[in-house]
Amino acid sequence: MNVHKVFERLFIVWPWLKGYSRPMLAADAVAAAVVTLLLIPQALAYALLAGMPPVTGLYASVLPLLVYALMGSSMSVAVGPAALRSIMSMAAVAAVVAPGTASFVVVSGVLALMVGSLLLLMGLLRMGFVAGFLSHPVLTGFVTASGLLIAMSQLGHVMGVQLPLSNAWVFAHTLWSQATQLHTLTLLVGLATWAALAWGPRLLAVLCKGGWANKILIKAWPLWVMLMAVVASAGAGWATQGVAVLGHVPQGLPALALPLWSEVPASVWGVLLLPAVLIALLTFVEQVSVAQTLAARRRERVDVNAEMRAMGGANMAAGLSGAFAVGASFSRSVVAHQAGAQTPMAGLLTALLVLGVALWLTPVLFHLPLAVLAAIILVAIGGLLDWRSFAKTWRYSKADFAAQLLTFGVTLGVDLVSGLMAGVVASLLLHIWHSSRPHIATVGNVPGTEHYRSVLRHAVTTQPHVLGLRPDESLFFANARFLEDHVVNAVAQQPQVRHVVLQCTAVNDIDASGLQSLEVIQQRLYDMDVALHLSEVKGPVMDRLQGTDFLKGLTGQVFLTHHQAVQALESEANQAP
Amino acid sequence: MNVHKVFERLFIVWPWLKGYSRPMLAADAVAAAVVTLLLIPQALAYALLAGMPPVTGLYASVLPLLVYALMGSSMSVAVGPAALRSIMSMAAVAAVVAPGTASFVVVSGVLALMVGSLLLLMGLLRMGFVAGFLSHPVLTGFVTASGLLIAMSQLGHVMGVQLPLSNAWVFAHTLWSQATQLHTLTLLVGLATWAALAWGPRLLAVLCKGGWANKILIKAWPLWVMLMAVVASAGAGWATQGVAVLGHVPQGLPALALPLWSEVPASVWGVLLLPAVLIALLTFVEQVSVAQTLAARRRERVDVNAEMRAMGGANMAAGLSGAFAVGASFSRSVVAHQAGAQTPMAGLLTALLVLGVALWLTPVLFHLPLAVLAAIILVAIGGLLDWRSFAKTWRYSKADFAAQLLTFGVTLGVDLVSGLMAGVVASLLLHIWHSSRPHIATVGNVPGTEHYRSVLRHAVTTQPHVLGLRPDESLFFANARFLEDHVVNAVAQQPQVRHVVLQCTAVNDIDASGLQSLEVIQQRLYDMDVALHLSEVKGPVMDRLQGTDFLKGLTGQVFLTHHQAVQALESEANQAP
Repeated sequence: MNVHKVFERLFIVWPWLKGYSRPMLAADAVAAAVVTLLLIPQALAYALLAGMPPVTGLYASVLPLLVYALMGSSMSVAVGPAALRSIMSMAAVAAVVAPGTASFVVVSGVLALMVGSLLLLMGLLRMGFVAGFLSHPVLTGFVTASGLLIAMSQLGHVMGVQLPLSNAWVFAHTLWSQATQLHTLTLLVGLATWAALAWGPRLLAVLCKGGWANKILIKAWPLWVMLMAVVASAGAGWATQGVAVLGHVPQGLPALALPLWSEVPASVWGVLLLPAVLIALLTFVEQVSVAQTLAARRRERVDVNAEMRAMGGANMAAGLSGAFAVGASFSRSVVAHQAGAQTPMAGLLTALLVLGVALWLTPVLFHLPLAVLAAIILVAIGGLLDWRSFAKTWRYSKADFAAQLLTFGVTLGVDLVSGLMAGVVASLLLHIWHSSRPHIATVGNVPGTEHYRSVLRHAVTTQPHVLGLRPDESLFFANARFLEDHVVNAVAQQPQVRHVVLQCTAVNDIDASGLQSLEVIQQRLYDMDVALHLSEVKGPVMDRLQGTDFLKGLTGQVFLTHHQAVQALESEANQAP
Repeated sequence: MNVHKVFERLFIVWPWLKGYSRPMLAADAVAAAVVTLLLIPQALAYALLAGMPPVTGLYASVLPLLVYALMGSSMSVAVGPAALRSIMSMAAVAAVVAPGTASFVVVSGVLALMVGSLLLLMGLLRMGFVAGFLSHPVLTGFVTASGLLIAMSQLGHVMGVQLPLSNAWVFAHTLWSQATQLHTLTLLVGLATWAALAWGPRLLAVLCKGGWANKILIKAWPLWVMLMAVVASAGAGWATQGVAVLGHVPQGLPALALPLWSEVPASVWGVLLLPAVLIALLTFVEQVSVAQTLAARRRERVDVNAEMRAMGGANMAAGLSGAFAVGASFSRSVVAHQAGAQTPMAGLLTALLVLGVALWLTPVLFHLPLAVLAAIILVAIGGLLDWRSFAKTWRYSKADFAAQLLTFGVTLGVDLVSGLMAGVVASLLLHIWHSSRPHIATVGNVPGTEHYRSVLRHAVTTQPHVLGLRPDESLFFANARFLEDHVVNAVAQQPQVRHVVLQCTAVNDIDASGLQSLEVIQQRLYDMDVALHLSEVKGPVMDRLQGTDFLKGLTGQVFLTHHQAVQALESEANQAP
């Protein structure tokens, strides 16, 4: 593949750019404006959550958006700072550097770079399948616990006390010891903001009954609340009364972070690897879920690997601009979609608008109370808490629920990385455990059909000298020995059996250990003077069995259908005596 | 469960003891004598391999054999020192204590105790299934590499130079640098022993043509070679000429190791945990394979969990007697079986005979050259090298071969624990990877039958408005999203399709993520005005689907057979217009 081809594959602008028209530009511009109004307060708040200077939230909303627009395949995904990634970044970096230092900013950038590189690499290697390791229950357990941790981390800002980001125990302990130092005015500002954010939009919707208010006032409501708070804070001089405010936010563009990375020791890169892998996986899963949900509404198709590469590029750009890890924001994507975003141009225009804010408007934000940003986060995390999923999983599968509860508990009680790892490992082990003891049905004929089902559940007919068994699992290392035991024991209990027919409808694969077991089974049955037959072997499985010693030495036959097997062995028995 | 019951379950002596007769005792005694003759040289050699004083090999052959005889279910398994466990014990303990010190002996005992406790625990919890994690290719890759490492570790004794036990690189490097210090007489003794062991039995078989020679001379051949070497060494005074000899072996019984364990710091116990888990798994797999192979020849049944508990007890006993981890020896088990061992009494008698040797005969061994023991090991490891398995795995499955080669390479090039872990993790990931991208067949009717097979492989008939899909995998977290994509894309390509029937013959389980995906698929198909049906859902899967929102809101029906589904949807289409 030459350079030109690589470039064309990485930057997939051409498909939408060639048909780009003036009306599309107008639609994209409106969507960009609406998204920007929502993005500004979120960017500042999520930077705070990531333990970073507020201005880096703006940096994270410029270059990454530009890169994603050039590389992504989705027409609506809004990229930038997002709650879950911010708290994961905070937790990972705080494990190696003290928050609030200059190194913290540098290392956060390194983490974003690592996340980006991993995503880009996985995208180029088409490794989208790895996202499957995060099962749905594990994911919801993790996200719900993270939501609670985010809420805890922000309560400190709302209450005007210093609370560390850690697990629930540390939090509860610190809260207890600091409860007396609560700052009343800060708490009042926080509560008022929270109330305005939570109930304001509903009130406005009733008052204004749609129209222009719907678009500009309600959707960008957090921005208006934020601006009102700035005016109130500046007017009343809250900063002089002990309310923590944003303070000086530097104007202008970030310096490229590249030269600083060489100062970060190799050991730090090593420690960050596992968190980086998990953040990358989580980012990818969230992004694909957002992209596919929105694409389905427009009957569009999402290129999963292109999305992975694009988010990789966006995170590398975040690292380069001295910001932190970014991802897809569900709330902003939905807003962009509803506001009529047509192409990635909407993201490009959003980036330019945020750039304008970063260049000229940051002095306005000096008096913004931190409690206001914390309240913005507190309202936003409501969407992360998915308690219904716990009840649903409990009803459907106790094993899945166990993995979900473990993930939730470890995330909340130990830390984020351990929680997610525990969930991934637990679901892998539960899956293997489950398939290591497969259901093996003894089957018989459903009268009047050519169909064979379990003797325990259906009124079926069987022959005394033919034993039909249907192993309900692929034959692989975890269950190979189980099948050996089961088949030989089943035959030992029925002395008149002369033929065993394995109905292979559910055998999707036979690995080397499974093949080994089939050989053992065949040998043991041969010692008992019983022939082994196979029926309904799937094409891909049969392809692999061709040419093996097992198939060459098969004591019985391979039948296309189980019905043909039973008929053939029946007529043979009738002829024999 | 009261104490009496627990006791009865742990010590399963009664079933064989109640029918025990004088002829059985005679047969067991003969078998015990033959096994002891083979065991004495092996016990000394494997103690050397484990980095332990030679006498501990005898200790490992007394108490553990007694305990196993009382707890085991197998009639022929011979327990005691075994090559693979010895080298794993050596590697694990050498990582925390310097070989040749008193602590090394204590820590080796601790390791045996841990291995024993783990096996006992897993046996009590009926966790025999965990052995499935060691797939056949991984196991052979590991055992073959271990065989090579054992050979390397013994070459030093044969050549009269000091070689460390480590990986292949370290070994090659040390060998190169020490090649000049080779001790000629030691090498000659080693080579002569090796030749005598390798070719002696065949020569004797030709000379004596069966009979008494077969039983006593050939089977106990290593013992005779050892005794001849002792006589030659003592007569010629090899020890004074620089040949390393066994030296003083203390007479009598071991002191109980219990009081020494409190001196071992907790950190050491922690470091030993992973090696202990792996040794326990490996011990169990080997033991079950030996027990089942021998039991099948006599149509006996092996109680896998009792075996696990018994080997647990045996290893705890090994730890208590100041010895090292023990396991089942395939060679000695076969010898016991062929010599006519009837019950675990044979093991009990073997233990008493070894005890006699330990009490009175150890001074005889003073002049035994270490090179002779090394040659005994070198001849024995031939059985561990299974090169044919590599060729067979390569032909059958490239993925399994990759896991096998990785295990082999890492074991040889890094260390034993890393090698086995790499193999286990690789086979888990390969399995999940494989099932994350399942084969999904589009099926049609095989004319003249009620059978449905893939349209790509068989001449089948299909209807334009009914799409039959057969996902060849359980629906679980790793492939849930894959199925979503596949079904929706398949329907998008065939606009005339009004019904999708998922033929669930190969769906052995649907976890919470799979259920979530079915809901998503149903919703997306509904948006496209297509109904979703299921056919041939297995009993256990249907049980779980009952009562779920998915089944309540199913846009189609659940059919017993795929044929019924196609017939019903066909007649409906004919009535509709």
